[in-house]
Amino acid sequence: MTEQIIRRTQFTFWKSIEVRWGDMDSMGHVNNTVYFTYLESARVELLHKLGARGKQRNDGQGPALVSTSCDFKQQVAYPATIDVGVRVEAIGQRSFRMSYGLFLRGTDEVVATASSVNAWIDYAAGRAVEIPDELRAALAEYQPSE
Amino acid sequence: MTEQIIRRTQFTFWKSIEVRWGDMDSMGHVNNTVYFTYLESARVELLHKLGARGKQRNDGQGPALVSTSCDFKQQVAYPATIDVGVRVEAIGQRSFRMSYGLFLRGTDEVVATASSVNAWIDYAAGRAVEIPDELRAALAEYQPSE
Amino acid sequence: MTEQIIRRTQFTFWKSIEVRWGDMDSMGHVNNTVYFTYLESARVELLHKLGARGKQRNDGQGPALVSTSCDFKQQVAYPATIDVGVRVEAIGQRSFRMSYGLFLRGTDEVVATASSVNAWIDYAAGRAVEIPDELRAALAEYQPSE
Amino acid sequence: MTEQIIRRTQFTFWKSIEVRWGDMDSMGHVNNTVYFTYLESARVELLHKLGARGKQRNDGQGPALVSTSCDFKQQVAYPATIDVGVRVEAIGQRSFRMSYGLFLRGTDEVVATASSVNAWIDYAAGRAVEIPDELRAALAEYQPSE
Repeated sequence: MTEQIIRRTQFTFWKSIEVRWGDMDSMGHVNNTVYFTYLESARVELLHKLGARGKQRNDGQGPALVSTSCDFKQQVAYPATIDVGVRVEAIGQRSFRMSYGLFLRGTDEVVATASSVNAWIDYAAGRAVEIPDELRAALAEYQPSE
Repeated sequence: MTEQIIRRTQFTFWKSIEVRWGDMDSMGHVNNTVYFTYLESARVELLHKLGARGKQRNDGQGPALVSTSCDFKQQVAYPATIDVGVRVEAIGQRSFRMSYGLFLRGTDEVVATASSVNAWIDYAAGRAVEIPDELRAALAEYQPSE
Repeated sequence: MTEQIIRRTQFTFWKSIEVRWGDMDSMGHVNNTVYFTYLESARVELLHKLGARGKQRNDGQGPALVSTSCDFKQQVAYPATIDVGVRVEAIGQRSFRMSYGLFLRGTDEVVATASSVNAWIDYAAGRAVEIPDELRAALAEYQPSE
Repeated sequence: MTEQIIRRTQFTFWKSIEVRWGDMDSMGHVNNTVYFTYLESARVELLHKLGARGKQRNDGQGPALVSTSCDFKQQVAYPATIDVGVRVEAIGQRSFRMSYGLFLRGTDEVVATASSVNAWIDYAAGRAVEIPDELRAALAEYQPSE
């Protein structure tokens, strides 16, 4: 597997997150499970900006996480701030995929890379439905131009 | 302040909680904030048993935590199981107080003692209301007899 | 008990903490246990500033949390930022007490008040020892002047 | 992508985890990040059994998580218990891969599937080293026989 080069310019939305002391585990580094809360914080903020959170809508629809993964590149200890870069990677009929790059604040040092897939759900029906056109357009604005 | 002797017989409800590896912080012990999740787990289970959780009721009422405190007596490391003892300490007009004793599983070694006050809330009105008689009676059964 | 008025001017050290979406529980508010991580974040940062964290020292001494309590005044939901005010309340021979006021960012709205007691520990001996003079002086600078 | 059928018989190590009320997020389901603590709890217990935790060893070696992923199949709400099945999927020169199946207690209902890669690290050198023979043999016992 060729190691891809991760650059800040590949991401279209940014969220900076201050590491809390309690984010560390008994190994003295930020615990692996906490990276997923960093992804969640960035994703929720972007979805909020796109008007895509369930509680923002009156059509009973919203996103549901289907899968997520993270590659850990470098250990992080408190104190630190992580810049989480996000881009919309792909938009399907009823789901969309995001990619993430986590960097040490203000540097090009990659801490982790990650991805997530969200289905677009009709909550009452409990199943995935087509992503509305206006959301599809909003998501597309966060796809990288390159 | 005289140090009170804490005995298992002072508690009327029990919940055993297995310490998760991730409950430890970078000092290698269960983090102080996690003790409050142990209290919460025991309290929610007791409230559920009493029919006092908001989602169990159709009167729009339920408990809301007003205050809580914990005295840490002994550090705990994974692997361990904590027996959380609970008793109803006092029942007021619109609130009730619980006390907790946390022991190493099956021993008399006290890990922590704690207390909590819950108000009884009408969620729509957003204010404390009188504890219903049937709940008052149910709570009273978990007061120590001594 | 007379309800004390809490003002920002009563605190001598500040730490702003951005609420994470995941800090909320299934009631849709910041979970009670998470307030204690906010206290911890502020306390660790102050202790670090005072040179009082164990890993900063070469005398094998450091702080250990003995007890903590929190009064919840107002529910908080994401998105929000909490300003945590801290003051050193009292300095004993082998322990010190801190008080906290949690405010909605930039407002006088009190979200919670809290307190903590830390013992000063010789880690190898596993017992409380006298607070060194230089730390005692540093702590005293965060006692309120009033 | 053909959906693979997940059966309990595909896993060689089991860890049951009681869902804590606080594991739920504001959507009223176990939060996605908490599944990774369930994986961690099962993984740490298996590694402990194999004598592979850093603190069990005197060669300065131990595991470090390189990547992890999770597919969420079904939402879970408190109260529930999750049976986490684990198997060693592959053993490389300096890393090993595990697969996980999360089931509702005592049923064949799959809640999630997951995987992880751990490198085998010399902590002082800060780099991956060859997995010792005795650990390789121990890991192999948790590969599925089929």
